[in-house]
Amino acid sequence: MSNQLDQLRQQFLAYLAAHPFRKSPIGLYEPVDYIMQLGGKRMRPILALLAYQLFKKDVDAALPVAMAVEVFHNFSLVHDDIMDAADLRRGKPTVHAKYDTNTAILSGDVMLIKSYQYLAQIGDPHIQAKLIQVFNQVAIEVCEGQQYDVDFENRSDVRIDEYLKMIEYKTAALLAGSLSMGAIAAGADEAAVAHLDRFGRKVGIAFQIQDDLLDSFGDPAKFGKKVGGDICQNKKTILILQALKDGNANEQAQLNQLLSTPTTNEQQKITAVKSLLEHLHIPTKVKTLRDQYLAEALQELETLEVEAAQKAPLFAIANQLVDRVI
Amino acid sequence: MSNQLDQLRQQFLAYLAAHPFRKSPIGLYEPVDYIMQLGGKRMRPILALLAYQLFKKDVDAALPVAMAVEVFHNFSLVHDDIMDAADLRRGKPTVHAKYDTNTAILSGDVMLIKSYQYLAQIGDPHIQAKLIQVFNQVAIEVCEGQQYDVDFENRSDVRIDEYLKMIEYKTAALLAGSLSMGAIAAGADEAAVAHLDRFGRKVGIAFQIQDDLLDSFGDPAKFGKKVGGDICQNKKTILILQALKDGNANEQAQLNQLLSTPTTNEQQKITAVKSLLEHLHIPTKVKTLRDQYLAEALQELETLEVEAAQKAPLFAIANQLVDRVI
Repeated sequence: MSNQLDQLRQQFLAYLAAHPFRKSPIGLYEPVDYIMQLGGKRMRPILALLAYQLFKKDVDAALPVAMAVEVFHNFSLVHDDIMDAADLRRGKPTVHAKYDTNTAILSGDVMLIKSYQYLAQIGDPHIQAKLIQVFNQVAIEVCEGQQYDVDFENRSDVRIDEYLKMIEYKTAALLAGSLSMGAIAAGADEAAVAHLDRFGRKVGIAFQIQDDLLDSFGDPAKFGKKVGGDICQNKKTILILQALKDGNANEQAQLNQLLSTPTTNEQQKITAVKSLLEHLHIPTKVKTLRDQYLAEALQELETLEVEAAQKAPLFAIANQLVDRVI
Repeated sequence: MSNQLDQLRQQFLAYLAAHPFRKSPIGLYEPVDYIMQLGGKRMRPILALLAYQLFKKDVDAALPVAMAVEVFHNFSLVHDDIMDAADLRRGKPTVHAKYDTNTAILSGDVMLIKSYQYLAQIGDPHIQAKLIQVFNQVAIEVCEGQQYDVDFENRSDVRIDEYLKMIEYKTAALLAGSLSMGAIAAGADEAAVAHLDRFGRKVGIAFQIQDDLLDSFGDPAKFGKKVGGDICQNKKTILILQALKDGNANEQAQLNQLLSTPTTNEQQKITAVKSLLEHLHIPTKVKTLRDQYLAEALQELETLEVEAAQKAPLFAIANQLVDRVI
């Protein structure tokens, strides 16, 4: 199973290596190669190739689609990192930190255009038009999700359904789009594309809920980042939103107080917030929500009319994504 | 003649008014409506509609293409204004000045995507694929032109051919693209599209050369901005590049000296630079270059196999653009 994923990852990486962006003006394109080579799991191109393989075997033909979603994903990282004033990504300087903000804006812009140029390599004009339509929708959702995320920072009344929509747009839409575009490239019918889209959205939401859970309750030995980072940054994760919903007036006030004052003693703050969350059984409730999304995702995959053996890698990737094995 | 242009402008403005961007999240889309309604001559959509009309009469069908090029143009203004730290455009605050830089980045991004979404409204998939291909190429050239412009600020050895390529990419490519995409939408053949593309590029270059001329030698009563602005900002316009090429060592040193020291007395500096340029006959030489580009542009239009009466508005617009009547 993981052999198949590794093989697709290698295939994508070979294609990426064979298609460097580097050309004149170098100030525009060098940052593109820099961010594209910074690594990552290459989850979106792998999903696009896996979805293509459900319907057709010449997976090479889907490499431009895989490239388009990976270039788009990296474009969104470059611009988001400016907005979040994030100086590090995967342990390396972000584009605006390594070069400057103007470079990060313009190199990001050209990446967004390049992602369309890769899609335009799909020769069949009917398929290309379908791909562009889905891609436009996904790209707009990613921007809207980022805006909602920014808006929520300054709101104290974010509802859980609003939060779920935000993470669907910001994260899940592109995972879903990678799958549905892979399927469209292979000529899959509308019903199959719709199943894969819903599968991707639900897995993506489960993945993001798990991200919130791990950040506060993950095993420090296994979790890559510092456990409690979201709490220190006063982030309104789904854990916090659920606690603000479930707690009594006193508990709500306590939590708001903890998250609105500057952090002086980090460990003390993390411990206080976590014990309040546990007192309200938030981890259990949020795990239940995560598992509901994962179950609904797997149900979409069950219903997809493709031979079971063919679907096995997608079942595996869904479970791995949410468990964060990969 | 100008009646026809006014009519197309009104038609476009009515379409724009009927298609507001405003929706949730409002923080993302309000800035889009703001910049789209800031005015301007709407030259690019008019060119797209005029080119469509050369071949087909149902000009309404080309309105999404006209919208795509105008949204793209405004996207490039929003991001360029951040990079240039420009606080005013058409006498109003720029998007990043009115809102903030993060908003200008993200609203610009969604505009770039929206321009593709408008192109995707062209139903014929063969025509849509051709439009996307041209648009990708033009959009990439606009980014590359902006990068060359930035690079040239820090170089003292910019050649005139490099400068001409920069203005072709940054300005002329989108004027040409508006024309060729209008023609493609009407099903024009490749030869006609190529003539319109070259016409647009050459007119665009002549237009930009005229822009440099007017900024230093325009009639203060007619020129909208302050005459001498480029000189005060030490901009390497084509006038300066030509003077650095033609002047002797002493004149080159004098000009470099004038343009590398901070401006203390603006009027004195403007007068000194202009008299040096006139001494070297730069205005005459640059006017000759401008007229060559305009003549070559008009020749492309002559060769275009369309009834002469049909082409009259394009001849008129070319002369007006370079004369800056419009």
